[in-house]
Amino acid sequence: MSNSFGTLFRISTFGESHGPGIGVVIDGCPAGLAVNVADIQAALDRRRPGQSELTTPRSEADQVEVLSGLFEGQTTGTPIGLFIRNADQRSHDYSHIQNAYRPSHADYTYDQKYGHRDYRGGGRSSARETAARVAAGAVAMQLLQHHGIRVRSYVSQVGAVAVPVGYEQLDLGLIDSNLVRCPHPETAERMAELIRQTRDRHDTVGGIVTGVATGVPAGLGEPVFDKLHAELGKAMLSINAVKAFEYGSGFAGTLLFGSEHNDAFYTDEAGRVRTRTNHSGGIQGGISNGQDIYFRVAFKPVATILQPQQTINNQGEAVELAGRGRHDPCVLPRAVPIVDAMTALVLADMLLRARASRV
Amino acid sequence: MSNSFGTLFRISTFGESHGPGIGVVIDGCPAGLAVNVADIQAALDRRRPGQSELTTPRSEADQVEVLSGLFEGQTTGTPIGLFIRNADQRSHDYSHIQNAYRPSHADYTYDQKYGHRDYRGGGRSSARETAARVAAGAVAMQLLQHHGIRVRSYVSQVGAVAVPVGYEQLDLGLIDSNLVRCPHPETAERMAELIRQTRDRHDTVGGIVTGVATGVPAGLGEPVFDKLHAELGKAMLSINAVKAFEYGSGFAGTLLFGSEHNDAFYTDEAGRVRTRTNHSGGIQGGISNGQDIYFRVAFKPVATILQPQQTINNQGEAVELAGRGRHDPCVLPRAVPIVDAMTALVLADMLLRARASRV
Amino acid sequence: MSNSFGTLFRISTFGESHGPGIGVVIDGCPAGLAVNVADIQAALDRRRPGQSELTTPRSEADQVEVLSGLFEGQTTGTPIGLFIRNADQRSHDYSHIQNAYRPSHADYTYDQKYGHRDYRGGGRSSARETAARVAAGAVAMQLLQHHGIRVRSYVSQVGAVAVPVGYEQLDLGLIDSNLVRCPHPETAERMAELIRQTRDRHDTVGGIVTGVATGVPAGLGEPVFDKLHAELGKAMLSINAVKAFEYGSGFAGTLLFGSEHNDAFYTDEAGRVRTRTNHSGGIQGGISNGQDIYFRVAFKPVATILQPQQTINNQGEAVELAGRGRHDPCVLPRAVPIVDAMTALVLADMLLRARASRV
Amino acid sequence: MSNSFGTLFRISTFGESHGPGIGVVIDGCPAGLAVNVADIQAALDRRRPGQSELTTPRSEADQVEVLSGLFEGQTTGTPIGLFIRNADQRSHDYSHIQNAYRPSHADYTYDQKYGHRDYRGGGRSSARETAARVAAGAVAMQLLQHHGIRVRSYVSQVGAVAVPVGYEQLDLGLIDSNLVRCPHPETAERMAELIRQTRDRHDTVGGIVTGVATGVPAGLGEPVFDKLHAELGKAMLSINAVKAFEYGSGFAGTLLFGSEHNDAFYTDEAGRVRTRTNHSGGIQGGISNGQDIYFRVAFKPVATILQPQQTINNQGEAVELAGRGRHDPCVLPRAVPIVDAMTALVLADMLLRARASRV
Repeated sequence: MSNSFGTLFRISTFGESHGPGIGVVIDGCPAGLAVNVADIQAALDRRRPGQSELTTPRSEADQVEVLSGLFEGQTTGTPIGLFIRNADQRSHDYSHIQNAYRPSHADYTYDQKYGHRDYRGGGRSSARETAARVAAGAVAMQLLQHHGIRVRSYVSQVGAVAVPVGYEQLDLGLIDSNLVRCPHPETAERMAELIRQTRDRHDTVGGIVTGVATGVPAGLGEPVFDKLHAELGKAMLSINAVKAFEYGSGFAGTLLFGSEHNDAFYTDEAGRVRTRTNHSGGIQGGISNGQDIYFRVAFKPVATILQPQQTINNQGEAVELAGRGRHDPCVLPRAVPIVDAMTALVLADMLLRARASRV
Repeated sequence: MSNSFGTLFRISTFGESHGPGIGVVIDGCPAGLAVNVADIQAALDRRRPGQSELTTPRSEADQVEVLSGLFEGQTTGTPIGLFIRNADQRSHDYSHIQNAYRPSHADYTYDQKYGHRDYRGGGRSSARETAARVAAGAVAMQLLQHHGIRVRSYVSQVGAVAVPVGYEQLDLGLIDSNLVRCPHPETAERMAELIRQTRDRHDTVGGIVTGVATGVPAGLGEPVFDKLHAELGKAMLSINAVKAFEYGSGFAGTLLFGSEHNDAFYTDEAGRVRTRTNHSGGIQGGISNGQDIYFRVAFKPVATILQPQQTINNQGEAVELAGRGRHDPCVLPRAVPIVDAMTALVLADMLLRARASRV
Repeated sequence: MSNSFGTLFRISTFGESHGPGIGVVIDGCPAGLAVNVADIQAALDRRRPGQSELTTPRSEADQVEVLSGLFEGQTTGTPIGLFIRNADQRSHDYSHIQNAYRPSHADYTYDQKYGHRDYRGGGRSSARETAARVAAGAVAMQLLQHHGIRVRSYVSQVGAVAVPVGYEQLDLGLIDSNLVRCPHPETAERMAELIRQTRDRHDTVGGIVTGVATGVPAGLGEPVFDKLHAELGKAMLSINAVKAFEYGSGFAGTLLFGSEHNDAFYTDEAGRVRTRTNHSGGIQGGISNGQDIYFRVAFKPVATILQPQQTINNQGEAVELAGRGRHDPCVLPRAVPIVDAMTALVLADMLLRARASRV
Repeated sequence: MSNSFGTLFRISTFGESHGPGIGVVIDGCPAGLAVNVADIQAALDRRRPGQSELTTPRSEADQVEVLSGLFEGQTTGTPIGLFIRNADQRSHDYSHIQNAYRPSHADYTYDQKYGHRDYRGGGRSSARETAARVAAGAVAMQLLQHHGIRVRSYVSQVGAVAVPVGYEQLDLGLIDSNLVRCPHPETAERMAELIRQTRDRHDTVGGIVTGVATGVPAGLGEPVFDKLHAELGKAMLSINAVKAFEYGSGFAGTLLFGSEHNDAFYTDEAGRVRTRTNHSGGIQGGISNGQDIYFRVAFKPVATILQPQQTINNQGEAVELAGRGRHDPCVLPRAVPIVDAMTALVLADMLLRARASRV
């Protein structure tokens, strides 16, 4: 159960960091959708380790293999199996972390829960699992495109370096114009510089990804528990290293009075219902209202740092852990395609669920 | 589907603001739990409208009726049905909102989704639905108490008035010592004053609830999608008016470097595994680590204001809506028992799910 | 989980035989369906105890109360809560079964599973729970009627007395023309006679209900695990006292060779695809093919007999149990509306699920 | 959704007959279970095509590959991915069935449902999908063995040739002593002869598999909808070609009176609760009572026959279909491991679910 996400457009991921590979089964993708495998690969390439000097030097080709569900370039309504073999499985010496609990990692909690754990590279708790999400999300994205929906996210903050304007003042076509995936070029440069400095200090830095979905029709999202923003929130919080989620006015909205915060409806010249402001972030009562959906996701600094740290081993004894391995000084640039994928998966699911709303 | 929450400890709510009442079915509560119905009623009384001058004057007794599942004071393992009749169903004139879309309410989106809507008092989108959650949460709470877990939340911010210290420096026994449910008496007074001023200006104000769970054993939460904090996040975001969720270091954690953010493990004198800091908020890799769990939930200002507002009707025509009715100037004090309830429901579910972790 | 059925058209039942009542929450019924509450009541009246000399004299009015989900005679897409109060809760003396395990009842297994049990009248294991299914099924039936689907079942066998012809040779309009609910009047008389004789001997007798669904469009049912007949089978086997399920050619089909069993396709004069025979029972590969769906459901003789029986108590000691109370000598006539209800629930669910099949 | 089975021990299968292969993801297998991959392979070998002269000559090695979830020979609590590559993918000419609807196959219904279908060898509707179930079932079996539960099924009837005695009078150790998998050697010979004759006539024949589970503790199975026998029934009916399911006394039980059918409880010399007869099939009120569980599953004759048949194409035009390809004259011998697997999957799931029954 814990490895599946979605109700009607439902994915189940499997695989560990240092096993044979990472995979996903998509169950519920409607039949008759033309799926371009190159687009899946392109999404994986955006998440791929070793893609730039700002990310981990671990190098994985991350080639996707389609195991099922496509026939003559189209979905058949049967489950789509996708698999990405782990290529760079160096026979590392993991003895230093086999028994020691890395600070702010999942080593201790996995041991407490399961009593037995694949300690190689984090095993299942490794962010490598998100490759499967990105592959599945790329299929969801093609379903959304078919329905005129567009999903784009970008890095809006690294450490204290933040984009000074809102998404609506940015040219989102610039997201991939730099290594950071920030569509504000000047800020992107400062972010890159901060990441380099942090890396050189053997430290790590966190930040914020802003997600935007446009073209979402009114009526998506289920009231009460499966509100559209509640599902988006869960989706984002399920990504490794995420600590916070807000949509629309978010935390800042608590500083406004109701008379300032309310979004007044009006009918535009084209006869379309719109709101004057969009503090609601495109969602009211858990259901999309046709305006842009936007939200922010906070990522903590990566827990693996190349510095010695005090911790304990599985006997409770104090040990010093020397950082090693190949890790990202900042996951934000690679988090962008993951946020895109999870957003697409939520919207695809809600698109199908909405079909049962009316007689 | 959208009206159920939880996997093994699962609730399904039903009912509308101005129909016969609000109810909930709890499916999966283990047999043999002594349930005190007075405790359920006490939880409802904390959420009850009309409880103080700071809340809506709508008065509801909110008496809970047990429809099933208890026998001789104990759970039997069968579904527990709870029902709360709506008492104060004044035969209001709703013609002013029957066709008009209230700003930042769910009127427009429900109409778009369903084509047909109970417009009386918000119908199903009314926060009155949360009475059912509070009742169910009170049962979950008794299961948690049986396992030594304690859940307490409080108002930590109203508008710009914020408690100046963290939860660990507060005496949480003071939460109910004032009408605001803020355990920092001086701040509580300032919050109450702000709420009164706002009410007198016919406006509304939002704020933040902080949730704390203590005594949670290590090992609760499922890795990957159903991470403990992802389920908590979804639970909170599913509450009416919630715009944001963060746990542990949250958004502020993005400003720390990894070397500052990591929580070092140590073994205390009692031989218990602990962490020096708790930026992780008691959760690592989606699984509880035995430290305190804490998080923050942002509530927007209530959308219903007693001021004229510009909007449109269901023909797309511009109309002015004059605010009426009995509404809360600030939902925060009444939100506290709802946050408690949702926290308890998530933890109860994870407690049961954890039983399947090992052979 | 165990008290819910269906994926998109989903019901959750609650309530015990001798508690306040029996209820159901329907989650997922589409908005905009006109629901006639009198039709729900009529379905309950067909299942009601005490309706004729052939059934239990326990008398329950079984009046349905609508708790939520309908507004101005239509569904709103929100959960429909229905409740049926237990009227005839005589303050029986249950001490004789409080500790003794009735043969072929659920007393022993409930105690083994839960350690604590409402022993009054079977508690949750009583067939009284099916009243909730019948009420929910009556709503599903109205959704099916809206889509031109008709569901009708009838008693085709009591003990060894069986209808000598297949459903297609019967006038199903005669089902309610007699107390047995068998549309073959001569056989119905012989069945009634057998039931009377059995009752007078203080014994009970089982039999078979045949279910028929007509007007089902091709394409309902999900391949692989949630095949249409697999869901129907589970639905029927979940009814109290059911021991067997077969559809189409069923067990008898094992005696045919493939060349005899295959259903040849042809196009009729109206251009409609049909099959020459219907051994498939209207379902191929788990998906409806547009032909009639038919199946048979076996009910064991009621376990409660008004004769002394040897058994044990919860200390494992041998005791003699004297039968008492008011019970059905044969449940078949009252089982008909339950089979109807479960059939309707499965088809309504599949109708909604089918909407997600294609892009 | 339709491609997953189980609640806590949950499998999701994927793959088509003539694509890259068939796979399964097992989610929820507890950590710490020693899994012998050779046992998975042995189960697959029992289902493998081409294993004897009585089955299809299509030859598949059906080598299982473990993609995830095992570490150092044990489960880790993470999803177990298993994959079986299709080896014998002859580049057949499928033009004869690309547009024609084979009688009693799923061609027509898939086209009606999805509008697009992988017509090669039946695609997803092929019984080849059950290889994934067998692999997953072999893991479930190892969990059951750990808990002292044993599952064994056998062929009890082929066409009209039936084993003359009940399972309790057979030596189930003889199941694999012959090609038919019938533990009654004389009957097995007659069955084999019937299968050979049928094959030589280019026809097919059906039959019955009897399933038996021993060592099942009392308390497994959920009351109401997810009754143990209801889940077993669904599991069996979801297997290709199954038309009927009965447990315990089944259809024959309708011919007994209550006084004959009831299973009297007694305490045996060892102090164990038992029943004098077992018409209940080891299940009362949907919950196991500690006696043997037994049931029967009817398989129709295979639809693919090597004879010309009348049918229509996707234009509705009458066409004659000449049978070709390599197919089983009788699936019963190969169905035995599938029934075993589905039984094991249901019991494993119920074993885990039962852990949440009590406080």
